[in-house]
Amino acid sequence: MKIENYIRDIQGFPKKEILFKDITPLLNDPKARKECLSVLVNSLKGQKIDKVVGAESRGFFFGILLAQELNAGFVPVRKPNKLPYDKISATYELEYGTDSLEMHIDAIKKGDKVLVHDDVLATGGTAKAVCELVEKLGGEIVQCNFLMELTFLNGREKIKENPIFAALTY
Amino acid sequence: MKIENYIRDIQGFPKKEILFKDITPLLNDPKARKECLSVLVNSLKGQKIDKVVGAESRGFFFGILLAQELNAGFVPVRKPNKLPYDKISATYELEYGTDSLEMHIDAIKKGDKVLVHDDVLATGGTAKAVCELVEKLGGEIVQCNFLMELTFLNGREKIKENPIFAALTY
Repeated sequence: MKIENYIRDIQGFPKKEILFKDITPLLNDPKARKECLSVLVNSLKGQKIDKVVGAESRGFFFGILLAQELNAGFVPVRKPNKLPYDKISATYELEYGTDSLEMHIDAIKKGDKVLVHDDVLATGGTAKAVCELVEKLGGEIVQCNFLMELTFLNGREKIKENPIFAALTY
Repeated sequence: MKIENYIRDIQGFPKKEILFKDITPLLNDPKARKECLSVLVNSLKGQKIDKVVGAESRGFFFGILLAQELNAGFVPVRKPNKLPYDKISATYELEYGTDSLEMHIDAIKKGDKVLVHDDVLATGGTAKAVCELVEKLGGEIVQCNFLMELTFLNGREKIKENPIFAALTY
């Protein structure tokens, strides 16, 4: 079974010039989904994880599956004004302007071993902001973990101080 | 272990008069999360499920965990313009105006046994729209399944033709 056969190319979404990698076929196939989860888990080589942090909202899917498999807490990182309790935030750059991400202040404890997960590593802006949030709360990042890395965007440069793993590279 | 101890009341979110039920403590505790998942799975009494449909975005968390546990496909229902492929949509009423939800046209096949999941059954507008989407594609709804039901809002009236289960009621 090849995981990449369950990623669908969509030309022109959300903008004309973008070739979007659609993960919904992977989510919709239990065998392929389990195979992909195994690949992500095996990359950790048995390292202990206390918390898995997933970025809104496509990072929620495999983020919480990883947390379940690793017997860890799951922490959603969300866009502004979505989380209801006391929060910290980190800002990141977009093509034009900036955006920010938020995390609950009690989501991670000092010294927690943290796995950062998102579906795609593209320019690295989101991943860098998530790492900043984890570090603000004293978490120790074990790995930044992605379904896919778009290598031509060189996002890994922004988070190069951390181990990085992607199940698929393009 | 009481699941309700992992639901945090937040008074005034997202609006002043609302008492919000925050599920992030439940997501962040692997034991409580597994206990809650067992309660949801046991409610199905071994019925076969082909697809679990989860509503954006808090329905994604236990939605995909249910799909994994039941060896079923997972189908995200999303807000407008978030899904990249060909879609169908259903409109529902808000306090003022309307909103809509979308599902990929190939997400469910005719005759699929479908579990509909969301975190909260409140007024029932979202759940009803999700059911409409499932039925448009010919899916057979086995159960509408929630972490919580806010009984005083009487949302179950809107989806009363389906079996309904909630792990917690308020």
